[in-house]
Amino acid sequence: MTMSEPAMARTGVSIASIDSFHVGGEVVKLTDQPKLEMRVAGKGVAREVDLNGSYVTGQVYANHVRLSQPQHDAPVMFWHGGAMTGVTWETTPDGRPGWQWLFLEAGYDVIVTDAVERGRASWSPYPQIYKAPPVFRTKEESWAMYRFGPKSGFKDDVASRQPFEGQRFPMSGFDALAAQLVPRWTTHDEMTLAAYEALLRKVGPVHLVTHSQGGWFSLNMVLRAPELIKSLVVIEPAGAPTLSKEDAKRISHIPHLFVWGDYIEDVPAWKNYRNAADEFMHALKGFGGTSNLLDLPREGIRGNSHVPMMDDNSADIAKLVADWMERTSNAG
Amino acid sequence: MTMSEPAMARTGVSIASIDSFHVGGEVVKLTDQPKLEMRVAGKGVAREVDLNGSYVTGQVYANHVRLSQPQHDAPVMFWHGGAMTGVTWETTPDGRPGWQWLFLEAGYDVIVTDAVERGRASWSPYPQIYKAPPVFRTKEESWAMYRFGPKSGFKDDVASRQPFEGQRFPMSGFDALAAQLVPRWTTHDEMTLAAYEALLRKVGPVHLVTHSQGGWFSLNMVLRAPELIKSLVVIEPAGAPTLSKEDAKRISHIPHLFVWGDYIEDVPAWKNYRNAADEFMHALKGFGGTSNLLDLPREGIRGNSHVPMMDDNSADIAKLVADWMERTSNAG
Repeated sequence: MTMSEPAMARTGVSIASIDSFHVGGEVVKLTDQPKLEMRVAGKGVAREVDLNGSYVTGQVYANHVRLSQPQHDAPVMFWHGGAMTGVTWETTPDGRPGWQWLFLEAGYDVIVTDAVERGRASWSPYPQIYKAPPVFRTKEESWAMYRFGPKSGFKDDVASRQPFEGQRFPMSGFDALAAQLVPRWTTHDEMTLAAYEALLRKVGPVHLVTHSQGGWFSLNMVLRAPELIKSLVVIEPAGAPTLSKEDAKRISHIPHLFVWGDYIEDVPAWKNYRNAADEFMHALKGFGGTSNLLDLPREGIRGNSHVPMMDDNSADIAKLVADWMERTSNAG
Repeated sequence: MTMSEPAMARTGVSIASIDSFHVGGEVVKLTDQPKLEMRVAGKGVAREVDLNGSYVTGQVYANHVRLSQPQHDAPVMFWHGGAMTGVTWETTPDGRPGWQWLFLEAGYDVIVTDAVERGRASWSPYPQIYKAPPVFRTKEESWAMYRFGPKSGFKDDVASRQPFEGQRFPMSGFDALAAQLVPRWTTHDEMTLAAYEALLRKVGPVHLVTHSQGGWFSLNMVLRAPELIKSLVVIEPAGAPTLSKEDAKRISHIPHLFVWGDYIEDVPAWKNYRNAADEFMHALKGFGGTSNLLDLPREGIRGNSHVPMMDDNSADIAKLVADWMERTSNAG
């Protein structure tokens, strides 16, 4: 496989198509809403806006780039984490090629998704259709939850920020990362899983690469639709379900790779999430499954944050993941 | 130029990079918000969510696809309409190549945007940061405003819907189009123009192709930053500013093309918007500018809706636009 070279040396990738579509969801009809008279666009021309009617809710967005000559048996599909969108996998906040591009260069068709209610997937009227209010992520929470530094290390002034020693997330890109953040709801797991399952049924099986909350979704999905997942790479999952022996046997043929960065011990929420994921990993292995760990600090790679696909060694980590994917696919 | 061939005959397009980024906006700090204790992701693990802190608001999202060998002097940049996102320019709702792909095939680098508060651009807490509530678009409003048929022609049941006679929007794609719709605010014109201007200053000058509310924005932008727009294609703008003689002279070197579909007379809101745009067009021409009209029915092309980039002849209309763009660029 070939991963990205510096931009100056980059040759083109022959791409057959860039397709996008929405999948899943349902139609909800509202009938007791007001009719408004408002200027919607243009200067001074008001028109009626009637909120009564039918809405599509619960759909997911997918962007599917197909190579002219894919080199592998199945596409790579990416699921992002909470408060984020598919932009996670595009250009890094400091302007380097993202994993979408690196996996295209590695010969995979690539599907980037925006989860239900995030980004281009759209969201629905609250409180009319969604029953809970949205949650927003501040820069301060990002700083702490992405493990860029101690809480006290965040400052409004860019130059004054104090990240963890050796931190690999490019600090020049922090404000650009903050611009990517989107609102989300915390009560839509089932809605999200249903849409992702519909997407997998449309385009699967896939090599699934997931991050954070997307990792939590994927560890549930592998139990729900194991026939649609050829391999599963889970980057810092925000939790994991409890794995029974019966369930482990059903998914024991699917290679799993768990990827973790540095500074886990410094953030209690991440210690909890990691414990849950480790239990899943060990149970799967214990029951005969293929469950690999890529603990970056233990491999001598220090300084990765919660968003290794954006860190300064993001291309190296993509290569480790792609090599694992190729190795386990050929083994199976 | 070459426009899209049927999928089976499609050869690859050599693409040098797919980049995305956010531009514009500002940071707003909230200090009087509650701290919540909630399960955010994963099973049963609650953590604190503190809504106090800094938010990026007012940014726009751009996706920039660069060809290995672009054939033209500047990229094409697309601005979508109200309640929509950059998905407008991707695959059509019934699965054909969208204008993003067709203009790549025609040799242009292509920049697709999600306007402020739409799609991947993200949106901000209401009422804490945004001062007005969002507006949502129903299927029923889409049916009427996109001029698919008379209001009474919309039915929940797909087979029972009664579009205008000769309607070219593929009815099999209507529900997929409804899945693309996103909430929007109607009070953010200045915020949106500021972000679009920042984007143009970063990547311009461009050939700008805009739709509906995006058309309204673009007819304001051409007065605000004429040096960043090489040519302007306005597809069914939702209104237009009043053009003074002085302003017309400042933009008289920029070729304008106004594109209109069918059934305008059947929908009063569109008659109003068209009148405003026609006044702009005639004033520009009257003061010596280049202002062309592509009135599809007058050209003998009947049946186009408000979304010609999705209609069954979308590739033909893309070709008309691309031919005009090439002709006027070479003339200038």
